[in-house]
Amino acid sequence: MKIELNRSSRIPLARQISQAIADRILSGYFQKGSRLPSVRELSRTLEVSPVTVVQALKILESQSLVNRVQGKGTFVYGESPKQQDPTAETLLPIPDYLHRTQHWHYHQEPARINFSLCAVHPSLLPGSALTDSMRHLLQHDPDILVQYGEIQGDLELRQVMAQYLNSEKLKVSPQEILVTNGAQQGIDLVIRSFIGPGDIVVTESPAYTAAIDAFRSRGATILSVSMDEEGMRMDELTALLDTYKPKLIYTNPSFQNPTGKVMSLKRRKELLDLAVSTGALILEDDSWSEIYYDGPPPPHIKSLDQHGHVIYLKGISKILSPGCRVGFLIASGSVLNPLIAAKTHADLGSPLLNQRVMIPLLKPDNITPLLKQLRTSLKKRRNRVIELLNEYAPDAVRWITPRGGFNLWLTLPETVNTNALLRETEKKHIQFLPGSACYAGEAEWNHLRICFSHVPESHLEEGIREFCSLLSSHLATAENRRSHTPIF
Amino acid sequence: MKIELNRSSRIPLARQISQAIADRILSGYFQKGSRLPSVRELSRTLEVSPVTVVQALKILESQSLVNRVQGKGTFVYGESPKQQDPTAETLLPIPDYLHRTQHWHYHQEPARINFSLCAVHPSLLPGSALTDSMRHLLQHDPDILVQYGEIQGDLELRQVMAQYLNSEKLKVSPQEILVTNGAQQGIDLVIRSFIGPGDIVVTESPAYTAAIDAFRSRGATILSVSMDEEGMRMDELTALLDTYKPKLIYTNPSFQNPTGKVMSLKRRKELLDLAVSTGALILEDDSWSEIYYDGPPPPHIKSLDQHGHVIYLKGISKILSPGCRVGFLIASGSVLNPLIAAKTHADLGSPLLNQRVMIPLLKPDNITPLLKQLRTSLKKRRNRVIELLNEYAPDAVRWITPRGGFNLWLTLPETVNTNALLRETEKKHIQFLPGSACYAGEAEWNHLRICFSHVPESHLEEGIREFCSLLSSHLATAENRRSHTPIF
Repeated sequence: MKIELNRSSRIPLARQISQAIADRILSGYFQKGSRLPSVRELSRTLEVSPVTVVQALKILESQSLVNRVQGKGTFVYGESPKQQDPTAETLLPIPDYLHRTQHWHYHQEPARINFSLCAVHPSLLPGSALTDSMRHLLQHDPDILVQYGEIQGDLELRQVMAQYLNSEKLKVSPQEILVTNGAQQGIDLVIRSFIGPGDIVVTESPAYTAAIDAFRSRGATILSVSMDEEGMRMDELTALLDTYKPKLIYTNPSFQNPTGKVMSLKRRKELLDLAVSTGALILEDDSWSEIYYDGPPPPHIKSLDQHGHVIYLKGISKILSPGCRVGFLIASGSVLNPLIAAKTHADLGSPLLNQRVMIPLLKPDNITPLLKQLRTSLKKRRNRVIELLNEYAPDAVRWITPRGGFNLWLTLPETVNTNALLRETEKKHIQFLPGSACYAGEAEWNHLRICFSHVPESHLEEGIREFCSLLSSHLATAENRRSHTPIF
Repeated sequence: MKIELNRSSRIPLARQISQAIADRILSGYFQKGSRLPSVRELSRTLEVSPVTVVQALKILESQSLVNRVQGKGTFVYGESPKQQDPTAETLLPIPDYLHRTQHWHYHQEPARINFSLCAVHPSLLPGSALTDSMRHLLQHDPDILVQYGEIQGDLELRQVMAQYLNSEKLKVSPQEILVTNGAQQGIDLVIRSFIGPGDIVVTESPAYTAAIDAFRSRGATILSVSMDEEGMRMDELTALLDTYKPKLIYTNPSFQNPTGKVMSLKRRKELLDLAVSTGALILEDDSWSEIYYDGPPPPHIKSLDQHGHVIYLKGISKILSPGCRVGFLIASGSVLNPLIAAKTHADLGSPLLNQRVMIPLLKPDNITPLLKQLRTSLKKRRNRVIELLNEYAPDAVRWITPRGGFNLWLTLPETVNTNALLRETEKKHIQFLPGSACYAGEAEWNHLRICFSHVPESHLEEGIREFCSLLSSHLATAENRRSHTPIF
């Protein structure tokens, strides 16, 4: 196990070690039930004292990630799978650069009731309009499957997208748009272009799991800023900027993933001013600003940007077609060129078919009613889920009613660990995202994210009820255990 | 301009500087006709003596990449464009991590006769079979556009691909296959998983431009091994391994890009043995081994691999559908897992539609006749191009007749610079790939690559004739210039 320790950091070594091991456990790199290297082994390979290693293991135990068995060693939580992975024999000792992949880890398990996958149920999406568009394409442009497209993206699609964004009060030209494979690739292109080992990235805390994974994979140092009801706290950010010079500030200003919070217009302006004055880029990730339930969010930060400091990512997988994997990156001038080059490195361009099929759907006559309908359906779902939680959730559970988006962020008493809760609900094939996956550094363990837009309508009520019942038992047991267990 | 110099390298500083500037010029980062920073400026920012800077600039001048004008400065070759890039005003000083993107640079310009794009003309590809498959899908699985797929790739596609590879004597299971967006993404996933700054990668020399670009973007040190008629030279590689410990050896063993060479079976075995004994991975990139004209190439290196040292990339963009952007990565055990995780970071999975549409085409009844037909058509083209070159090419031009693939590698007298030749042919809208783009380190300037599979049938003869005529004039002028210009 290769762990890079920063001996001049203010974070104690034991914390650094426990965090690195937690990342690997939570990314599924260590099989459940497997034994960790011994204290002596870790102490030798990491060049730290055995006392430090023991401290790190104790932290992991307090996080319910390992079990320490007297005289036997330290084991990753959970039972070892009965069936061994047949390919596991081939274990080449090739060190890799992927230290954290929690997003993948939490989206592997099939579930009967899936509150983890952040997507919209297929029945709510314009399947038949997409099929019609595809049929039309095949008839009028039969060569589309045997052609390469432009690396920056199909020009007609970029023109239609520019129009759409203009209607959303974001003035851009088709030349400023790069077509990506979903918004995730947009994050990835920005990282590979501008972020290297040791570069500083600022995120909201908690933040989108897959973004954290991606920043960590390039060796970035991630600094977290907490949020209040107006979004990212500018007092905290300003204080950080006294000491650090971040290269990038990553934000979901509208219906933030995972909390659902909205950044106020005032904060958006302040954030931009801070970025301009410190020479940082802002990465504004917008997957669902159109999905509002009580009025639209403030203007995009990119629409306020005069100097090209903002890279704006617009995903449409969530709101139109997950199957096409089309997203957009908007940037200006010298910031855009390396991003197009990075797209060349990544895949030589997105598939032409998937781009062209979106063109009719993005035209005003289609997208306006589509989004209206989606807002109406999802608002009903949100209201229903809140009603159900009010009725069935234990008293100790708190949440913020989201004003848009697909997610609900639940907070449990501080003594509860939602990773442990997940192990209980998984036995009943109910999935959610444990909040710890949304923290870049020191995690908070008592939150969880529920996505209410993907479960079939018919399972929503049953799912929330069953989840609440499991939650109640878990809280009771946790309370019970706590009152009998000595704290070390 | 940020250039990282390695002061303990055996490569002289002036060479390192000239190479870094050449990379940027050849990637289009400096506008044609623009002035480079002055000798004094470069000397100060790079912390080297002015004499070293002058040496570097002289090397660039000898490579026809810059013009030095007495009393005015050093200018990037070519005329500045009349129209300024409208977004160029926004020039944020954000240093990026993309030092070399020659592949993108050489594929931007539209051309009347395009010998540069390495692809197959749409009329030779199974457009109508693909359209039928798509229609069938839309009818039987109308929800396909509104669903997410599995991150590793659609299981049915992986099963069909495993069957196809088994028929190609490569025994793999669907669990060992990862679906990528074309083979380029396969290269990228391997790099982001296993290659970091300073890691050593070995490639053939010359090699595939986009692969070199991608290795460089992660800060890898690339060591080049030359080829003879049996492919990569094992004596050279063995000598390298005495001094260096590469993490990855990248190879195109069958109809290598750009030279068309084939690695013999003996060499394939030797290469694998060397990789196993030194603990290196082999990245075997196979875009067109099925397109042979005089008998199939030896077995894939992956088929000889007992210990999981080989990652095999199978592109099908070139031979079936560039428009779908589907490729495959085959790896085993502990090597595969980080690659799937990397796919999550990259884009959360390939579009489902594009994967499923390939399923019927990859079944034996379809792919066998498709490939046979493609071989027949392209063999005719290869023969015709060789005839035309025999008739029209100047005597000083040499080439290897390729036994498969799409490319022809031409060698000109050593005094000729094909980047300068390209500037001439571009005036007539004829594109090819200058050989210098295929070298990771010190380039050879007197080669070029012609792709004969993409130009429309009707333009092939005219294109080669016109190209040969421009080549003859260029050779005459170069000869002429050389005899009158003092050599510095």
